[in-house]
Amino acid sequence: MLVRLLGIRGTAVAIMVLAAVAAAAAGSLSQERTGASHPVVDSHGNLRVPDDYRTRYEALGAWAVRTGTAAAVAQMHLVYASPRAIEHFRALGRFPDGTVLVKEVWDADTAPMTTGTVSHPGQLKGWFVMVKESRDLHPENKLWGDGWAWSWFDADKPTKTTSTDYTRDCKSCHVPARMTDWIYVNGYPALRK
Amino acid sequence: MLVRLLGIRGTAVAIMVLAAVAAAAAGSLSQERTGASHPVVDSHGNLRVPDDYRTRYEALGAWAVRTGTAAAVAQMHLVYASPRAIEHFRALGRFPDGTVLVKEVWDADTAPMTTGTVSHPGQLKGWFVMVKESRDLHPENKLWGDGWAWSWFDADKPTKTTSTDYTRDCKSCHVPARMTDWIYVNGYPALRK
Repeated sequence: MLVRLLGIRGTAVAIMVLAAVAAAAAGSLSQERTGASHPVVDSHGNLRVPDDYRTRYEALGAWAVRTGTAAAVAQMHLVYASPRAIEHFRALGRFPDGTVLVKEVWDADTAPMTTGTVSHPGQLKGWFVMVKESRDLHPENKLWGDGWAWSWFDADKPTKTTSTDYTRDCKSCHVPARMTDWIYVNGYPALRK
Repeated sequence: MLVRLLGIRGTAVAIMVLAAVAAAAAGSLSQERTGASHPVVDSHGNLRVPDDYRTRYEALGAWAVRTGTAAAVAQMHLVYASPRAIEHFRALGRFPDGTVLVKEVWDADTAPMTTGTVSHPGQLKGWFVMVKESRDLHPENKLWGDGWAWSWFDADKPTKTTSTDYTRDCKSCHVPARMTDWIYVNGYPALRK
């Protein structure tokens, strides 16, 4: 009865749709893995800023940075994590391999508003991108190490890093967070269960 | 041939999967609409904080708020928008009906870090929730008006607002943004094309 209702053409369509659904599910599971086909990592282990992370990724948190003795907020940092990273962290207590973290660095704009003296992202300076990978996939690449790939990108070059050695360009700022896999997880309430 | 391969049981499963896919697609299109079945709005127009917005919603932006003459950041506000709100705003120049905005209000924690004196979300105080609706769906509800539904939620009561009249409890802080549909859109770079 159902077969007659659907017919052979309908069944074929159903199979194609099922296949497409299965392919999409498989793709979404694997796309954040770090390999040659990773959208953020090329075959040499070089990173890039992921496309559309503002709508595809999850919001991890934000930081307001004052520098020197100035009262004004100098920078705002907005941090995003690849899909399901928050869910995985809540379950595992760590970011699984393939997790991508993107930190936008903004010069802050500050103005009096109805709630006080308020800062918000003004001009984008660039991005820090980190990709979690516990295997030593790119021993020849000096932007890989300590379980992560690390790179900075100027705002006008999201596909080409200016970093050359993560131990010099990136790691030093993360040393206080070395006990939490180099990430300041305490600043991200979204990771709490 | 395909029918024989799949069999009647297979066809029935395929139909169920197709129906589920269709229902999911229809649901995702309509679930952010403001009606009795809206996950954020009940049949009387009362709002609640949406479930899982941290992983389901898009990050709209962040604010760092200093109050009085103190240098320290007092609060961090993290703002989320319902799925596709950013895409729609970029295309239309406005938030379409059904858009849900969630603003987390955090007491800030501030500490010296490697980049300076840095603040991040510490203790959650609560949420502002706004739902865009250009029709006058709930004229009897004092939390609806000016094209939005408005409510504040204390951190321990995400399903029951303490707001009683949006003109008194919510609108006054938004008056400077009345020309941009009451939202401080200039603080959200994600909305730029």
